[in-house]
Amino acid sequence: MANAPVQRMSQLMAKTLRDDPADAEVLSHKLLVRAGYVRRTAAGVWSWLPLGRKVLANVERIVREEMDAIGAQEVLLPALLPREPYEATGRWDEYGAELFRLKDRKGGDYLLGPTHEEIFTLLVKDQATSYKDLPVILYQIQTKYRDEARPRAGILRGREFQMKDSYSFDLDDEGLARSYALHRQAYQRIFDRLGLDYRICAATAGAMGGSKSEEFLAPAAAGEDTFADCPNCDFAANTEAITYELKPVDASDVPAAEEIPTPDTPTIETLAASLGVPASATLKNLLVKVDGEIVAVGVPGDREVDLDKVEAHFAPAVVEMVTEGDFANRPDLVRGYVGPQGLDKVKYIADPRVAPGTAWITGANKPDTHARNVVAGRDFQVDEYVDVVVVQEGDPCPKCGTGLKLDRAIEIGHIFQLGRKYTDALKLDVLGQNGKPVRVTMGSYGIGVSRAVAALAEQHADDKGLIWPKEVAPADVHVVAAGKAQQTEVALDVSGRLAAAGVRVLVDDRAGVSPGVKFTDAELIGVPAILVVGRRAGEGVVELRDRRTGEREELPIEDALARLTSA
Amino acid sequence: MANAPVQRMSQLMAKTLRDDPADAEVLSHKLLVRAGYVRRTAAGVWSWLPLGRKVLANVERIVREEMDAIGAQEVLLPALLPREPYEATGRWDEYGAELFRLKDRKGGDYLLGPTHEEIFTLLVKDQATSYKDLPVILYQIQTKYRDEARPRAGILRGREFQMKDSYSFDLDDEGLARSYALHRQAYQRIFDRLGLDYRICAATAGAMGGSKSEEFLAPAAAGEDTFADCPNCDFAANTEAITYELKPVDASDVPAAEEIPTPDTPTIETLAASLGVPASATLKNLLVKVDGEIVAVGVPGDREVDLDKVEAHFAPAVVEMVTEGDFANRPDLVRGYVGPQGLDKVKYIADPRVAPGTAWITGANKPDTHARNVVAGRDFQVDEYVDVVVVQEGDPCPKCGTGLKLDRAIEIGHIFQLGRKYTDALKLDVLGQNGKPVRVTMGSYGIGVSRAVAALAEQHADDKGLIWPKEVAPADVHVVAAGKAQQTEVALDVSGRLAAAGVRVLVDDRAGVSPGVKFTDAELIGVPAILVVGRRAGEGVVELRDRRTGEREELPIEDALARLTSA
Repeated sequence: MANAPVQRMSQLMAKTLRDDPADAEVLSHKLLVRAGYVRRTAAGVWSWLPLGRKVLANVERIVREEMDAIGAQEVLLPALLPREPYEATGRWDEYGAELFRLKDRKGGDYLLGPTHEEIFTLLVKDQATSYKDLPVILYQIQTKYRDEARPRAGILRGREFQMKDSYSFDLDDEGLARSYALHRQAYQRIFDRLGLDYRICAATAGAMGGSKSEEFLAPAAAGEDTFADCPNCDFAANTEAITYELKPVDASDVPAAEEIPTPDTPTIETLAASLGVPASATLKNLLVKVDGEIVAVGVPGDREVDLDKVEAHFAPAVVEMVTEGDFANRPDLVRGYVGPQGLDKVKYIADPRVAPGTAWITGANKPDTHARNVVAGRDFQVDEYVDVVVVQEGDPCPKCGTGLKLDRAIEIGHIFQLGRKYTDALKLDVLGQNGKPVRVTMGSYGIGVSRAVAALAEQHADDKGLIWPKEVAPADVHVVAAGKAQQTEVALDVSGRLAAAGVRVLVDDRAGVSPGVKFTDAELIGVPAILVVGRRAGEGVVELRDRRTGEREELPIEDALARLTSA
Repeated sequence: MANAPVQRMSQLMAKTLRDDPADAEVLSHKLLVRAGYVRRTAAGVWSWLPLGRKVLANVERIVREEMDAIGAQEVLLPALLPREPYEATGRWDEYGAELFRLKDRKGGDYLLGPTHEEIFTLLVKDQATSYKDLPVILYQIQTKYRDEARPRAGILRGREFQMKDSYSFDLDDEGLARSYALHRQAYQRIFDRLGLDYRICAATAGAMGGSKSEEFLAPAAAGEDTFADCPNCDFAANTEAITYELKPVDASDVPAAEEIPTPDTPTIETLAASLGVPASATLKNLLVKVDGEIVAVGVPGDREVDLDKVEAHFAPAVVEMVTEGDFANRPDLVRGYVGPQGLDKVKYIADPRVAPGTAWITGANKPDTHARNVVAGRDFQVDEYVDVVVVQEGDPCPKCGTGLKLDRAIEIGHIFQLGRKYTDALKLDVLGQNGKPVRVTMGSYGIGVSRAVAALAEQHADDKGLIWPKEVAPADVHVVAAGKAQQTEVALDVSGRLAAAGVRVLVDDRAGVSPGVKFTDAELIGVPAILVVGRRAGEGVVELRDRRTGEREELPIEDALARLTSA
């Protein structure tokens, strides 16, 4: 094995801090700053110090090896990109304020790439002319830019960050499915090797367009995504992507609808209490304006409307809440007593839980009056079924019906079957086997490389600090010279021997720093094995500590070396 | 040795072109595009295709290994940088139009880093508090941005490019000298390993400030720098940095100055011809305006004034040429007949060749009249000596006097002893051994990583294409399957065996491509060894070609494998 480097802490630019940075809210932010891995340069813009750079490089290496293994070809595209291709696909505008835009000295419009679908499509358009040139998977590991409204959580959500993005180009849907499956497998190998706990979840495609998409989510309290996990079957999905199946029921024995006086019950809570029924027996009707037109949204009384889902459904139309003024202009809409039956000139969308045949207590469109036995499909028509409710813990699994568990998670990877959105916009064809042009179909796949470092820090830490999995750790062994100059000499000698055997060593050889401070720093920094060269070094005895388990063992130096070099 | 990858050309995204790109002027631009290494994305903004990315990664690896070897610590700083630190050092403005500036969504000012002195200084200010924390050398390999007025020559002078930049921080001048020497040695090892022909040349410090600086120049016709090389001693310098020594001479036997009528001799050429003297016997006086004040610049009549040197001397004052209007306003300045003697109210600077005691024929400040025996220091005073002439082939070596040779070259590396320019502006002190604050001194060192690839292409090519040195080549062996399917099978088998022995293989397994086209592509791509699996493959015989020498040898497959795996 080749000689590995010995990094001496006496010379290392990695100051540890005793206190959390004032602006840090999440664990990984606190620990990575305190342990000297990263430093903030500007809002959402970070510098990687030597130890952080090593971890980042380890993650990059693993990503590279597994991408190479599926036959992906590494390229490096620019981050500074011309406006035109993004104009052609509409993303120059769609990205809104999230896109960093700038002008060059001649006034030309440029952007800092947030993701590179357009440029890769043009590259393949330049390079591939025939069906023989496909399929191809291209990838890069590169700096990306997004002007987040609220950059937060340290490197978890930066404005400049490292990403692996890859793009597949295929002749047909079967080819795309193959390229997608290759990525799915490569991502599993990558996250397994990184030592991340993760779930593969069905996902909405979001702003990327396209059909099939899955997210790789790493459960962590600091996560910005919520995902639902079935304790019984293998179902897992981002809650944004869960849709309830429409299940019509038989309403033939439901009596005719009738009005009931319900004074002073303008809310679901007051109504349910007054009638002695559960909120789930009532139908809640939320009024919104979609591009200025009033739309009613019906959901069971015990559920919350997820306005993000409503907005996503109507996008790019603008969704607003109704105002006092809207009620004043529309006397047919009785605030607190709206019901879908007899609602004229108002589009009615409903959650699938308001399936045909279900019966409800709902507003009667008169003050202080509700109606009961109001049946969907009989007493009112639903213009469109859209899943718009907030998913709750215990909601039935769409696959097996078991109550779902909800968790926070970090999105560490995302794979998309984009289809022809970009190849249509940029007209990417190759000559097919039959001599006719074939429109190429495309996939897009991302891994947040710097974010993966944050996810690792979230998942691999305790109250003392970080605990890196072996393959990503900044070193294999942290040698602590705990004592006088003599111990330091032994520690450096041991470090040299370990390095000669290919073990990556961080050695704390600082003079004038107490053993206690060195131990605290070693636990904060989180190298998996800690070798203490202390009082008994003179007798040839050292202590080996396992950072994760906390186990300690005194043993002869030679035994410790044998153990560490065989690991 | 570990398994190396086999890259199949049938799947490789690297289209070769028969013709030079229309906009290409220099060799490396033509060849790197034609051989499928890079593609233009926008003016001065390039994409690295798979083979190009491999060469770039090889250069990065060599740079990294040699920087690590001198104890430099790798970090990664952002490219998107806040305005404030660059405001503090004055470079936000000084950089002018070359700096890409942009605003974030909140209107904050940012720039894309052209070089990172400010940010590294602030990083060390955050990390180092005591003399014990120094010296330190930090480096990064990172994307840099400069909005060149005329991006040209492909990747040789891009607006987005890869650079290794490092920064040393020391307590005193001796420390800085040591850090500088370490870099100088590391750079020699790097460029030696890269296989570049280069010279270490004295350089002006340019816009960076500071005292001592040397450039690593790679001779190439496409170079933008001119350097002078002594054929006799070890002197080499960027011509911008050469200054002639001031050598006063004895003028005691020069007769008194006297006027001579010289009708119709407004130029040096007409004057010298009319008097029958060499132009070098005359003194040329160029008038310029420095911030509006007229200044005369005296140089021997046979020399050209280098206006860049004049501007550099007076910077940041603005230097302009005098106009008709200026002569009209100053009747004492007689156009074509200006002489330094009796020139009132005009600052006079002169080249050191106009040393005290030298005698000249020059204008007499009267129409159609010159003066001879006009002696510097006797008949006129020089306010300031500044070397302002264009260096010429054959000028004496400042060290040994031999006539210098001039050549074009590419600047591939630059090392600077910056001193305290940035640490003063950003107040970087550490506590010294005596308990008092010490102002830190700094060096800054750069290698153009992507430019080095262009320099390699300039120096290692022939009329058939590129010829990469082994350590940077995109593969070790280019296996060409020159024939039918059977040869392709053998070629792939041979490639697999080479790869298993750790040899990096590019194999041309394309179907329907003639052997002739494959040979032409192999020569264009420039992998050092070419293994042809052709007609005699059935008998177990292949051909080994040396791309550089063109030597060919037929030999048994096993012998070829043995040769290639032992190389």
